[in-house]
Amino acid sequence: MKDFELHIPTKIIFGKKAIKQIPKELPKLGKKALWVYGKSSIKKTGLYEKLKAFLSKTNVEFVELGGVKSNPLLSKVLEGIELARKHKVDFILAVGGGSVIDTAKTIACGYYYKGDIWNFFEKKTYPEKALPIAVVLTISGTGSELNEVSVIVHDIKKVKRSLRSPLLFPKVSFLDPTLTFTVSPEYTAYGAVDAFSHVFEFFVNREYKKDCLVEDLMVSIMKNIMKWSKVAIKEPTNYEARANLMWASSLALCGIVKAGIGAYRFPIHAIEHTLSGGYDIPHGLGLAILMRAWIKKYKDYNIIRKFFAKVFDLSIKRDRNISDKGVELFENWLRELKLPVSLAEIGIPERDIDMLVDKAFEIFELYGAEKEYPKERIRELFKIAIAL
Amino acid sequence: MKDFELHIPTKIIFGKKAIKQIPKELPKLGKKALWVYGKSSIKKTGLYEKLKAFLSKTNVEFVELGGVKSNPLLSKVLEGIELARKHKVDFILAVGGGSVIDTAKTIACGYYYKGDIWNFFEKKTYPEKALPIAVVLTISGTGSELNEVSVIVHDIKKVKRSLRSPLLFPKVSFLDPTLTFTVSPEYTAYGAVDAFSHVFEFFVNREYKKDCLVEDLMVSIMKNIMKWSKVAIKEPTNYEARANLMWASSLALCGIVKAGIGAYRFPIHAIEHTLSGGYDIPHGLGLAILMRAWIKKYKDYNIIRKFFAKVFDLSIKRDRNISDKGVELFENWLRELKLPVSLAEIGIPERDIDMLVDKAFEIFELYGAEKEYPKERIRELFKIAIAL
Repeated sequence: MKDFELHIPTKIIFGKKAIKQIPKELPKLGKKALWVYGKSSIKKTGLYEKLKAFLSKTNVEFVELGGVKSNPLLSKVLEGIELARKHKVDFILAVGGGSVIDTAKTIACGYYYKGDIWNFFEKKTYPEKALPIAVVLTISGTGSELNEVSVIVHDIKKVKRSLRSPLLFPKVSFLDPTLTFTVSPEYTAYGAVDAFSHVFEFFVNREYKKDCLVEDLMVSIMKNIMKWSKVAIKEPTNYEARANLMWASSLALCGIVKAGIGAYRFPIHAIEHTLSGGYDIPHGLGLAILMRAWIKKYKDYNIIRKFFAKVFDLSIKRDRNISDKGVELFENWLRELKLPVSLAEIGIPERDIDMLVDKAFEIFELYGAEKEYPKERIRELFKIAIAL
Repeated sequence: MKDFELHIPTKIIFGKKAIKQIPKELPKLGKKALWVYGKSSIKKTGLYEKLKAFLSKTNVEFVELGGVKSNPLLSKVLEGIELARKHKVDFILAVGGGSVIDTAKTIACGYYYKGDIWNFFEKKTYPEKALPIAVVLTISGTGSELNEVSVIVHDIKKVKRSLRSPLLFPKVSFLDPTLTFTVSPEYTAYGAVDAFSHVFEFFVNREYKKDCLVEDLMVSIMKNIMKWSKVAIKEPTNYEARANLMWASSLALCGIVKAGIGAYRFPIHAIEHTLSGGYDIPHGLGLAILMRAWIKKYKDYNIIRKFFAKVFDLSIKRDRNISDKGVELFENWLRELKLPVSLAEIGIPERDIDMLVDKAFEIFELYGAEKEYPKERIRELFKIAIAL
């Protein structure tokens, strides 16, 4: 095991009665809040009215910022910062999924920053202060409710970048699995793939690759995501499926499964950001296609064979064709979730590959990983991803 | 899954260089501290001098309280409170294992309490305020470095009781596995059994018994404790073994593996406290004997068969004699750790059983669990525990 630091200051309130704790918890954060939410879904499902009732009991004054879209835009963040400053809010309440939470996070630290906040995303500077954040989660996947990361799309540059700061951990997250009963099968699948991919990247692209406790924790999370995602897309109101998916997604990126793995990379995410940032496709969909390509490309590598063995209960010694069997079982999972597995299937043409390679390479340059991920390596991956 | 709240505010600094962070971290907690440690071991191993050097860099003034023994005594706590008040300390630094940390925790909340602090342990009142606590861990097992529990023995009443308060989570815990290289094989085994038993009790005595993510996390922790404890007692300086044991022990009782399991009981611990509290035997030794008795008594219950299946990779369907096989494999583990498995082996005579039953029953009464654990049930367990 490698040395690590771990500090997860977020308070989790989980379950069917989670949001009943709102009147008790929110006043601890201040008297005035910016309430951030997405497009229309919380109004359609009735959650908006339900929350209004709870919020009215808090004596906290709310300013609303609705309309956050998935693949959240910098322009919305800027609008939020202006509103937050105008009303001098004490904290931010995010009600939604990853896009809403990530928007809230960047508003929270942008509130105190006088310069161009895109500097945070280009690693030119780091937040020194942030407003406290509370979260009511409505879709599982990104894990943003229990981590320090925010991912935002630059409207004009059409690039997706991430920001990481310990200041961005929410103070409190309300996780009620019943709020995800109305998430469509497609978005349930995207969320599951996203959460799975976080653990998969830690598993595959880590410095410390030996057997250890943390590796087994990763396997448990990946297995449970596979199992319960299949149930949830068939039975949207199956509480156990929704609850296990929600908790697995939160644990996937909160720091616990990377504790002790040493240096790691998130290359599949880096490359995916060129897809969801460029074509505005769902992040989870891009990840499904690229993870499948990654697994096909590296199926004979020891770490991928270990992944196959542990996640699919295969044996490296006994199952001689473990690599092909593993690829097949992984594809089966994506098929069961009714996800496309290639770029061709979602209409991205082969002629775009050059442009995609250039954009992905730029991200690796930003992280100083251009030697590890030269253009040729990225191109090979896209070539596999294009084909069925 | 059942509803839960989870909030672990402790910052973990883990690894070979952990204590190098002391000069950076401790001054955040104040200018004057009570430094609590055990009998002679930290002086023998050189850790005392090493820490003194680090502490001298902090500009924090230290008052020392050494001599905490295992099965830590209330009298030592009272001595610590007096010392802490006299010097008006800002925080407490605990350097040791569970006994030292638990002593520090009770001093921390006793510092502000004017009444008889045994009231906390008799659930007559709860702490409202506590000094911050920092921990340097020197032995794995109790998990006290990452939880809100303190267990203390009343000198005169010879009873062991626990106190639980969110105020007792350490602010920061320095976990350096190399500090446990000098822990004897016996105490390594006791620590491993203690950590294992925490997860075992959650697994066996929980309200929500269905398959779920949290159950699989429990299994991963139990399997890793079994695996690495066997390595550590043979190779005391095996870093991977010590690191995995240390991290598994911390995770075992920090709240993560009980998230979602609903109501639970810790009957094996409750009963064990009559042994270590009464005869001053190591807690882990008492747990080994009682866990083995528990497993023998309930070997045909569904939850124990599930435990056997998951932890020993057996199959309830295929392995017809799974109950006996499971008992055997569990005993094998204890034998490999060179632990006695019966009360007879450690010289506790059958005539003591009546007294032990009465004492254990008192504890269940305290928790309002006397109907669930009537004397007859406790007696049956002791009868199995006595015999080889």
